[in-house]
Amino acid sequence: MQRYFVSNNQIKRDIVEIINQDYHHIKNVMRMKIGEFVEVCDENQNVYLAKIIEFTKDVVILQITNKVDANVELNTNITIGLGLTKASKVEEVIRRITELGASGFIPVEMRYSTVRIDKGNNLKQQRLETIVKEASEQSKRTKLMKVYEPITLDQLLKNLTNYEVLVYAYEDLASDSKNKLKNIISTFKNKNVLILVGPEGGFSKEEVSKLNGLGFIAVGLGPRILRLETAPLYLMSAISYELEL
Amino acid sequence: MQRYFVSNNQIKRDIVEIINQDYHHIKNVMRMKIGEFVEVCDENQNVYLAKIIEFTKDVVILQITNKVDANVELNTNITIGLGLTKASKVEEVIRRITELGASGFIPVEMRYSTVRIDKGNNLKQQRLETIVKEASEQSKRTKLMKVYEPITLDQLLKNLTNYEVLVYAYEDLASDSKNKLKNIISTFKNKNVLILVGPEGGFSKEEVSKLNGLGFIAVGLGPRILRLETAPLYLMSAISYELEL
Repeated sequence: MQRYFVSNNQIKRDIVEIINQDYHHIKNVMRMKIGEFVEVCDENQNVYLAKIIEFTKDVVILQITNKVDANVELNTNITIGLGLTKASKVEEVIRRITELGASGFIPVEMRYSTVRIDKGNNLKQQRLETIVKEASEQSKRTKLMKVYEPITLDQLLKNLTNYEVLVYAYEDLASDSKNKLKNIISTFKNKNVLILVGPEGGFSKEEVSKLNGLGFIAVGLGPRILRLETAPLYLMSAISYELEL
Repeated sequence: MQRYFVSNNQIKRDIVEIINQDYHHIKNVMRMKIGEFVEVCDENQNVYLAKIIEFTKDVVILQITNKVDANVELNTNITIGLGLTKASKVEEVIRRITELGASGFIPVEMRYSTVRIDKGNNLKQQRLETIVKEASEQSKRTKLMKVYEPITLDQLLKNLTNYEVLVYAYEDLASDSKNKLKNIISTFKNKNVLILVGPEGGFSKEEVSKLNGLGFIAVGLGPRILRLETAPLYLMSAISYELEL
């Protein structure tokens, strides 16, 4: 069943109005007809089964027939802060960690980032949000991952009050047997967790000592060196495996 | 330290000869000079530190200075059989599962594969092996993942004698609480394991009953629907997490 995310103000009692890109998708891509059904997901993570009752010039009008029980969200809010890098890599990470259940994504300019916020940063907020929406619909999520504007590591570290657990993936721990990821994932339950992954060159020594000073927990991700695009997928898969299987 | 995979016949006593693409990489990409060091990995997973002692017209000659202790391989041999799909997706999966420690990859034509072996199959064996080599060097592996030629599911199922554990990822178990992945990964240790992941349309009913009849264990990968490119990464991450962290 095709799923669409709508704002709460697109739903009035049992009537849903779908517009813009999603209108185009239903009418011209899926070529759906009056009487066919889609799933509609509101901002409060409610999912409804809804029947198409009318197409106007720019609105699909649907009637809700019933609420769908669909709890597929992780029982923890994971925000991934990724060392700022090329837009194509950021987009791939965003697509995959959306599927894997992340709640937030922050592109973070770090010492060794090859791309800077003001220079060579080609991230297009609108495009990133479209990727999240599509990946959420496809993976049947009920919550849209929040994509934050790029920020420097120093700016991010000034305001950590939103997060109850602070973690960073540290390559030099890769072959350390005292690796702690396995011990801490169970503490993520019902918490807001920030996990930082370094850019291609890793974290600088200065950054590592800042993170340690602020109480971040360093975790290794196994003995092989993972690319920055792979590390967030490893983390999200491990979290799902530990908490959901 | 840059790492290169060589055939055993490129090493004679303490002298290593590096040729072809790797010659080009050392000389023109890395622009290395006489006296600089690289790591060399032979077919038996030995890793050596070696010093460049000469460049000829088409060979870099190195002298081994010592053996490096570098056990970064998973203690299980995982072969992923992925529903045959577009070459770009296959290439991405191969790159990532190489990083994540897989031992083998088989493109498998299944009922709902959008690409067939004889028609629209653009997989280039040489290119796939180059991807494996590059990803292995970058992730510091000592073993090259084997990439098999595409095969139909029926052909594959006729000869399973290489594998001691048989698994398939089944989407319809996604929200099943009796999911078994967590219970079976510990049985993978020191075993040859085949894990099948379906194509975009999943496995057909007939395929599922064949797999069940042959003793394959169905595992779910959590409550969200994962793309075929993401499922193998989830599996390999979960296996590393369970067995290595």
